Amino acid sequence: MQLHLTTWVEVEAYLKTSRGIIMPIGSTEQHGPNGLVGTDAICAEVIARGVGEATGALVGPTIPVGMAVHHMEFPGSMTLKPSTLIALVRDYVGSLAEHGFQRFFFVNGHGGNVATLRAAFYEVYAEQRALRGRDAPDLRCTLVNWWENAEIGRLSRELFQGKEGSHATPSEVSVTQYAYPDSIKTAAMEPEQAPAGSFYDARDFRRRYPDGRIGSAPGLATPEHGKRLYDAAVEAIAKQYTTFLAEA
Amino acid sequence: MQLHLTTWVEVEAYLKTSRGIIMPIGSTEQHGPNGLVGTDAICAEVIARGVGEATGALVGPTIPVGMAVHHMEFPGSMTLKPSTLIALVRDYVGSLAEHGFQRFFFVNGHGGNVATLRAAFYEVYAEQRALRGRDAPDLRCTLVNWWENAEIGRLSRELFQGKEGSHATPSEVSVTQYAYPDSIKTAAMEPEQAPAGSFYDARDFRRRYPDGRIGSAPGLATPEHGKRLYDAAVEAIAKQYTTFLAEA
Amino acid sequence: MQLHLTTWVEVEAYLKTSRGIIMPIGSTEQHGPNGLVGTDAICAEVIARGVGEATGALVGPTIPVGMAVHHMEFPGSMTLKPSTLIALVRDYVGSLAEHGFQRFFFVNGHGGNVATLRAAFYEVYAEQRALRGRDAPDLRCTLVNWWENAEIGRLSRELFQGKEGSHATPSEVSVTQYAYPDSIKTAAMEPEQAPAGSFYDARDFRRRYPDGRIGSAPGLATPEHGKRLYDAAVEAIAKQYTTFLAEA
Amino acid sequence: MQLHLTTWVEVEAYLKTSRGIIMPIGSTEQHGPNGLVGTDAICAEVIARGVGEATGALVGPTIPVGMAVHHMEFPGSMTLKPSTLIALVRDYVGSLAEHGFQRFFFVNGHGGNVATLRAAFYEVYAEQRALRGRDAPDLRCTLVNWWENAEIGRLSRELFQGKEGSHATPSEVSVTQYAYPDSIKTAAMEPEQAPAGSFYDARDFRRRYPDGRIGSAPGLATPEHGKRLYDAAVEAIAKQYTTFLAEA
Amino acid sequence: MQLHLTTWVEVEAYLKTSRGIIMPIGSTEQHGPNGLVGTDAICAEVIARGVGEATGALVGPTIPVGMAVHHMEFPGSMTLKPSTLIALVRDYVGSLAEHGFQRFFFVNGHGGNVATLRAAFYEVYAEQRALRGRDAPDLRCTLVNWWENAEIGRLSRELFQGKEGSHATPSEVSVTQYAYPDSIKTAAMEPEQAPAGSFYDARDFRRRYPDGRIGSAPGLATPEHGKRLYDAAVEAIAKQYTTFLAEA
Amino acid sequence: MQLHLTTWVEVEAYLKTSRGIIMPIGSTEQHGPNGLVGTDAICAEVIARGVGEATGALVGPTIPVGMAVHHMEFPGSMTLKPSTLIALVRDYVGSLAEHGFQRFFFVNGHGGNVATLRAAFYEVYAEQRALRGRDAPDLRCTLVNWWENAEIGRLSRELFQGKEGSHATPSEVSVTQYAYPDSIKTAAMEPEQAPAGSFYDARDFRRRYPDGRIGSAPGLATPEHGKRLYDAAVEAIAKQYTTFLAEA
Repeated sequence: MQLHLTTWVEVEAYLKTSRGIIMPIGSTEQHGPNGLVGTDAICAEVIARGVGEATGALVGPTIPVGMAVHHMEFPGSMTLKPSTLIALVRDYVGSLAEHGFQRFFFVNGHGGNVATLRAAFYEVYAEQRALRGRDAPDLRCTLVNWWENAEIGRLSRELFQGKEGSHATPSEVSVTQYAYPDSIKTAAMEPEQAPAGSFYDARDFRRRYPDGRIGSAPGLATPEHGKRLYDAAVEAIAKQYTTFLAEA
Repeated sequence: MQLHLTTWVEVEAYLKTSRGIIMPIGSTEQHGPNGLVGTDAICAEVIARGVGEATGALVGPTIPVGMAVHHMEFPGSMTLKPSTLIALVRDYVGSLAEHGFQRFFFVNGHGGNVATLRAAFYEVYAEQRALRGRDAPDLRCTLVNWWENAEIGRLSRELFQGKEGSHATPSEVSVTQYAYPDSIKTAAMEPEQAPAGSFYDARDFRRRYPDGRIGSAPGLATPEHGKRLYDAAVEAIAKQYTTFLAEA
Repeated sequence: MQLHLTTWVEVEAYLKTSRGIIMPIGSTEQHGPNGLVGTDAICAEVIARGVGEATGALVGPTIPVGMAVHHMEFPGSMTLKPSTLIALVRDYVGSLAEHGFQRFFFVNGHGGNVATLRAAFYEVYAEQRALRGRDAPDLRCTLVNWWENAEIGRLSRELFQGKEGSHATPSEVSVTQYAYPDSIKTAAMEPEQAPAGSFYDARDFRRRYPDGRIGSAPGLATPEHGKRLYDAAVEAIAKQYTTFLAEA
Repeated sequence: MQLHLTTWVEVEAYLKTSRGIIMPIGSTEQHGPNGLVGTDAICAEVIARGVGEATGALVGPTIPVGMAVHHMEFPGSMTLKPSTLIALVRDYVGSLAEHGFQRFFFVNGHGGNVATLRAAFYEVYAEQRALRGRDAPDLRCTLVNWWENAEIGRLSRELFQGKEGSHATPSEVSVTQYAYPDSIKTAAMEPEQAPAGSFYDARDFRRRYPDGRIGSAPGLATPEHGKRLYDAAVEAIAKQYTTFLAEA
Repeated sequence: MQLHLTTWVEVEAYLKTSRGIIMPIGSTEQHGPNGLVGTDAICAEVIARGVGEATGALVGPTIPVGMAVHHMEFPGSMTLKPSTLIALVRDYVGSLAEHGFQRFFFVNGHGGNVATLRAAFYEVYAEQRALRGRDAPDLRCTLVNWWENAEIGRLSRELFQGKEGSHATPSEVSVTQYAYPDSIKTAAMEPEQAPAGSFYDARDFRRRYPDGRIGSAPGLATPEHGKRLYDAAVEAIAKQYTTFLAEA
Repeated sequence: MQLHLTTWVEVEAYLKTSRGIIMPIGSTEQHGPNGLVGTDAICAEVIARGVGEATGALVGPTIPVGMAVHHMEFPGSMTLKPSTLIALVRDYVGSLAEHGFQRFFFVNGHGGNVATLRAAFYEVYAEQRALRGRDAPDLRCTLVNWWENAEIGRLSRELFQGKEGSHATPSEVSVTQYAYPDSIKTAAMEPEQAPAGSFYDARDFRRRYPDGRIGSAPGLATPEHGKRLYDAAVEAIAKQYTTFLAEA
């Protein structure tokens, strides 16, 4: 059940049964020679939608642009400043809280969002506390990275044999190939597996990782792998969502 | 050509041929008893995509949540504060300008966004001027409301006979029915055509328009009408985009 | 009755009879070779004062500097960034709302303010809603451009015969000549009527309109015309204010 | 020479002769039973104008609303939050600096503005340094309180014999009576001279000074005294401005 | 009693006896050839601690970096923008007010902080008023500059004979020598007493005062003088704090 | 070498040998019945100082108050909103970068700071990129949590046998006891080891962890353990700092 495809009357009815909502957040940034600029948003969106179907949860609009300052040396990358993303999340959660939503479960597609998103949760708590004091609603925000669970870890190792890497990974590229089979890209990549490591700002990133990949071999991606990863992620995250709602 | 479905290498190639980009912006807000909460985002997104196909332009990610403070008494509505939306647009345009984009053509799905979006354009100009002075790139931002052109006006009058109204209109509901035929909703509405008028804040809106519609009879919407409206909008706006790029 | 020329005791008494206040907002920006930099502020201020006299309404302090980013290539032009103007309007309205004012009627002298001012109104509504929830006072903000009413339209056509234009117009210059007869300026202008059109940022504006005028022939301005325009504007806007206060 | 009453062409010419500008800043706040809400703005404006006439300096638009949080328990008082006033001053000075102004001489009418205004000057310096580094123009901002000079001190003692006080003073009320003789108010005040002291927030202010005066006997004000004070202030401040411009 | 060296249980007990807290604020900026970069923070911290011991008051964490934009041409100087310092003070006071603290007594070590700190107090009052209206707690903020009292004035004249100056003074250097005897620096200074005067931005400051001192002869500093100054300051400020708490 | 205890001349000399600086950041928040409110700031400060001594690095001023929204139900806890902490870090790093510092090594004492601090690093990079484009200095920011290294992990297991927990831990309490032996607190705690788990906002935290501890047995702390932990942390982190500086 996607918020975009419901009426307000249906939302009103939903709120009588649940205070939870799933919020996909991605990024719009380079994903190497064969990865889509929208990879992170696509993964978050389709997996969140699958979790919504599996659990009956409402799924909010995908945040398509996240915190990707470090990718800005590659054309097509977009970013919010951290302070802007915090304001956006504060407004999203604040809006939904006015209607009675209290459990915000962010399905995240981009590691670069994590810090800012967590900071945003505390900005939300601080604001609610300032505005409502001890009468503030019992809001709870959490995030899961779709690839950080045992099932995806196992599958990635099986499918990609240590060539997953940390950016422009064959896992995420596979999920987008499964989701958008008409947009599968091919590109020669040399070496097959990119160097691994860390980075600081955007220029440093590009200097270290000239084609945009970090530690990954996204040439291994296939839509079939994508389907298996999608299924595993939905199953794992549906359980996490259910647990989140059930917490005392 | 959608930014989300391209690689950075393809964007780099595109920038050698064009400095323009189409930016869809919608809203996530009630649209009456049978209109989807995502109506404005859906209309902006599908029409922008059509314009992109017609013109070969790149289409950026849809801004799904806009300025909808006045809808906040209806469950499911979300809003950015105007100041947040300005910051978001500043970051979107600023990011893309780093890569060489200079012509930003916003296809807007929500009248409530217009003022803030226009304000944001000047925030962009002011910031560029502060940062780069007279060396700033020649950035140009404009917006079109998809329903504000002669073709859509004519078609709306033909199809809905004066029952278009100004919110939750049969035109926009039709476009969403065409885009998402599996999500067509039916609802009894009394009266068939809602009262027309203006409003101030969210409580005032709900008091005047208790089911969310303003002046409209969205029960008249059909996916067939949606297709005609979509085609007309794409054709009209493709011309506007071309003119925008060609301006001296 | 101007707020600046009353005592707090008089304001206290006024609030027992009315919740309305008139807020003039202008701009400090070039107005072509013979127009004053203060044209928009002067027009808004004197017309608002006239409306105050006609209706018994309190008139607040004029906002002298508005959103004029696009005029910044002409010496003497000043601007607030849109985000600053939003903060200012939020503070103005918020201050007055503390005392019980609820109807804010902005008399605007500058087209460039409209978008940001409308955005500001929603920032106000959003803040009040956040702070006070459903106990927030029933605040209503509106704006009228002094030149946008049937009477002024008719008079402009009669007096200037299609040479009104859209910036540094003979109408606004006439009103300032009526208001400040000691500051009437003369300047050769070539051509008599400037080219019309639109613009993007400040450099683009100056390139298109090198002497600052858009579509206008302000050499036609006279203080006598100014008086007629002033009288017509006051009469028209006094009615609009009365209607605004009477709205359910 | 008032900026509002000049054309951009005249400003361009002025800038060839001087980089200085006078900026009046007042407040819109209660001034006791017989003082005008606009007292501080009026005093700053008329004295600044006089200084402009005496020195040939350009005088910018008056900032009518300043930092008056502590007066907010009295109807009619308006305030900017300090952070808003800082943003406003930053935009004012930044705008004028784009044209080549470099010496900003604020004539202040309200003690409550001083701290925020001084903070704003450093916000300006910090921003210029960030934006332009060591190529930043040599901007200098200063402020004078119109009543803080030897001449006004002497005159106040002569005229009011120790009953000047610190808010709603007979000096400032006299200046407004001289400037606006049609708006002279009379009011019984008990005691003739209000209690003196300090205060914290707005409620504390009202509790200590129930009619709004601090330490003053504004019943002693006359327009004749106002003229003498005006003349003395203009003479003293004109010298200060000249010195400011001449500083190495 | 320093907040940093107490447990929350002890703070809870303290709050049953007092609503007051002492807040040291310094700066991290050049202090001439033999003054420490931390001079202002050190003075504020040690004197505040002494006042805490003398009065039994709780002493909060020292704000080590203040508003020092004008010192930025000297290596090691750090500054918050005024707007950042205002936000910081708002958060500090706001946090402590949640626990019931109501009397905030800032012991300041840096003249450059005064304006911004005073502005911040009104930002606090404005925010509390917005959030809580007339139910806001009776918060009171004040600041004392440790060197601005009769005792320190007398001692400075006795010890330094008119060579105190206004920046990098022998008084403040002496206090740091007393506090950190292992960090006493010696440096040739020519002339012994630096030129006095004012300044605008950072470049102007460095141009006028090339070694960082203003009007001072810090070569006269000794730790023995520091002890006398420390003792005098603590005694004087302890009285001021007691008076502050006792105010109606 | 602590910045606070150096002169600007010494900093100037240091910058000829190194571009690196160590920045301690703590928090001011409850640390259970026997932990000091300043625990995190103290640990960060003393360990950073030790690392500075071990490596010859300059150590900046400790940030004493961090992001501790979740501790605000316990008296004495203070917090910056995440957006304020981001602004502060941006100003700290920006100030130091003006002098030529390029390697910012934050020694962190509080897990709750991590997300906001990481977000702040990207705010810094984004701002530098906006201001200076590709001419921006090669700034690099990183953080280490003092307790997150193999040595401390091993020691904690040896000393506390699985009773370390995650807040108000015996390790951090031990370090403060070593640093401030005169401020060792004793308190009965029941149970000896607090329950472990996660939390959302401040009320949720207090409900789950009524005495403030999470999973820890801080009664096991001793100053002797503190010394061993301090030594191990300094040794481990000195290596990390050296590696950081040496990175290509």
